[in-house]
Amino acid sequence: MTQPFTVGLAGLGTVGVGLLKLLRDNASVVEARAGRPVAVGAVSARVRGRDRGVSLAGVHWFDDPVALAADPGIDVVVEAIGGAEGAARAVVTAALAAGKPVVSANKALLAVHGAELAVAAERAGVPLAFEAAVAGGIPVIKALREGLAGNRITRVAGILNGTCNYILTVMREHHREFADVLAEAQKLGYAEADPSIDIDGVDAAHKLAILAALAFGRPVAFDAVHVEGIRRITALDIAFAAEFGYRIKLLGLARRSRAGISARVHPCMVPEVSPIARVDGVFNAVVADGDFVGRVMLEGRGAGAGPTASALAADLIDIARGRTTPVWGAASGDLADVPSVPMEAHSGAYYLRLMVVDRPGVLADVTAVLRDQGISLESMLQRGRSPGETVPVVLVTHETRESAMRAALGEIGALEAVLEEPTVIRIEPA
Amino acid sequence: MTQPFTVGLAGLGTVGVGLLKLLRDNASVVEARAGRPVAVGAVSARVRGRDRGVSLAGVHWFDDPVALAADPGIDVVVEAIGGAEGAARAVVTAALAAGKPVVSANKALLAVHGAELAVAAERAGVPLAFEAAVAGGIPVIKALREGLAGNRITRVAGILNGTCNYILTVMREHHREFADVLAEAQKLGYAEADPSIDIDGVDAAHKLAILAALAFGRPVAFDAVHVEGIRRITALDIAFAAEFGYRIKLLGLARRSRAGISARVHPCMVPEVSPIARVDGVFNAVVADGDFVGRVMLEGRGAGAGPTASALAADLIDIARGRTTPVWGAASGDLADVPSVPMEAHSGAYYLRLMVVDRPGVLADVTAVLRDQGISLESMLQRGRSPGETVPVVLVTHETRESAMRAALGEIGALEAVLEEPTVIRIEPA
Repeated sequence: MTQPFTVGLAGLGTVGVGLLKLLRDNASVVEARAGRPVAVGAVSARVRGRDRGVSLAGVHWFDDPVALAADPGIDVVVEAIGGAEGAARAVVTAALAAGKPVVSANKALLAVHGAELAVAAERAGVPLAFEAAVAGGIPVIKALREGLAGNRITRVAGILNGTCNYILTVMREHHREFADVLAEAQKLGYAEADPSIDIDGVDAAHKLAILAALAFGRPVAFDAVHVEGIRRITALDIAFAAEFGYRIKLLGLARRSRAGISARVHPCMVPEVSPIARVDGVFNAVVADGDFVGRVMLEGRGAGAGPTASALAADLIDIARGRTTPVWGAASGDLADVPSVPMEAHSGAYYLRLMVVDRPGVLADVTAVLRDQGISLESMLQRGRSPGETVPVVLVTHETRESAMRAALGEIGALEAVLEEPTVIRIEPA
Repeated sequence: MTQPFTVGLAGLGTVGVGLLKLLRDNASVVEARAGRPVAVGAVSARVRGRDRGVSLAGVHWFDDPVALAADPGIDVVVEAIGGAEGAARAVVTAALAAGKPVVSANKALLAVHGAELAVAAERAGVPLAFEAAVAGGIPVIKALREGLAGNRITRVAGILNGTCNYILTVMREHHREFADVLAEAQKLGYAEADPSIDIDGVDAAHKLAILAALAFGRPVAFDAVHVEGIRRITALDIAFAAEFGYRIKLLGLARRSRAGISARVHPCMVPEVSPIARVDGVFNAVVADGDFVGRVMLEGRGAGAGPTASALAADLIDIARGRTTPVWGAASGDLADVPSVPMEAHSGAYYLRLMVVDRPGVLADVTAVLRDQGISLESMLQRGRSPGETVPVVLVTHETRESAMRAALGEIGALEAVLEEPTVIRIEPA
């Protein structure tokens, strides 16, 4: 019998347990694909005794994951701890230093420390794989890093956070408000007790930083990603979006232009006929535009034990077969040093919703501000009339520069008749 | 400078010229991804003098592609000739015999001779890659063979032929008939002068045979694929489909059940809300269901010079980097010997359209035949009344066995009041 490929698994949460289950349930499939058995030989987690629904009989236990990473009986280390710092970072660093291949599901770690980890992996001559870090089991890392490698990618975009997409989908389908749906999602386990990483767009930004680095062959740059979340989206905005033929999605978008690379995560209005608008619930999707391949879209479950285990297993099989790729698709020295384009330089159409006192002259004041900033309107919508009461007014602009819009928003927000902070949602073409 | 990876390119049609163009236009991208320059060193085609829009200066010319395959100056052979036999087969066989890696865009060759070519590749210890053989630039081979390798796949389905999908899309959008749209597609270059390989479903069947082998880890079995094309689809059927909430697509479907593997290509009615129903025009899509990953869908351009070149380049970069995979995902000896399930054993719902003389008793005769075969009806539709004239009658069945449906069709077709061969379209769940 061929020598098994022995995995050291650090972290026994949902992700780690999912991998244990996959490697047992599908042992014969994995063995045929990998050319040898792949088995977990050692594990590490914070709490030892807990019942996790899988047997750990015959598996070495390490209290210290860094000790696990250095164990000579381990061929490859799987990091399923999470977080950009602390134990996760220590385990990955220790494993690479010990000359061991690493498989990680950790988007934060890759987004924040991916450049230095790539150098460490190159120095050690071992792979650092992270298919599970973005879009769950959908093989998007493999697609960008290998499958589309002959293309110049001009744009990569995606629905990268299942929690946000679930909340926005339920809000639209049931005409419910954000806070209400979030509370329910937390009860159902679709949102964390502290949901801010998801709903404020940080998780999606980690993933977008990774995708942009792979798509454009440049060093990962999380700090260059502009990030906004979905807390301020209301059922009213979703209803207005539908009237204009749009759906609201939290998208990650990275684009390469002559000026450089822009990367941003924020709620978008996308045409409801576009394929990405139809990706609902906890599903994720990634769209890449290449100069030869055209547009490719990949869609599937973006999170959960099963999909994440699928991605980890794919990385393990690759490494067992000797299929390795430089961490960021090309050697660190071959990555292009392309400047980042700041959000202020963004240009596009905007949806703007104001809550105003319904009285003569208010719209004149608002439109005068826009005119003075050189912003032209495509349409304006005021539903109903309630003299003296608060009513929503929606404005959709033609292509406008972000900097002009921000200046206009400052002035509009200061108008006495404008009662709440204006809601701004950028409109993205399909 | 690193030694270039030298390509011998056999075939200078659309596909071959597309690859030449990509390797020149994107030379720096490819070099960074491959870790070394990738350049075409030699070519072969039937006609030498023709202007193909790309310069062949400095490239060796071979009249005989088999001689090119054996040339010691060539590191990898790209077969872009096409066809299951003849020159294409000879070149691939010769290259493997000479111990050279092969990249092929040839679905017919892989579907028909893929098992023996895999043995030859294994014997030579070199890769045989064929991402371009299925779904153009969409990395579906890589997704099934590597990205989802940890899963037991239960079903793989797809829109695998852009010509058919284009024709069906135009028929639906413009209420036009098949022959008319086909003739236009031929004029526009979306269909071949001899379109039978495409419209009779053979091309899709080649691709499905490849996908099924990869998804289920069993030897490729083109002869086991049930094949029907789209010649008999009418604008009337497309309109009836819409009334029932369906769209008509030519799908390739392979499923693994306890009985074995079924593989079939035929027109299907799919719910218009399902993602695959929305894939229109020349686009292709592949959907795979894995036990851990759930459902994954990949979508993009399925043919054309650019997408095909993208796939060939990805294979070349993989090989230049030393990333290789057994031809069918696992070594030939590790493929599972799973029986094929014949089409007669298929079970599903059916759409049945009859052209009948509008007179009393006809429907009683038809429904009696169905009853006698144990086929129960979900709905029946007769639009309008024209006593003595020919009218369409549509019947939708509950789940029915193919063998029962075939027996019923024989009897129904023989009824005096049934004026044309009945049209049968299988209904597929989303």
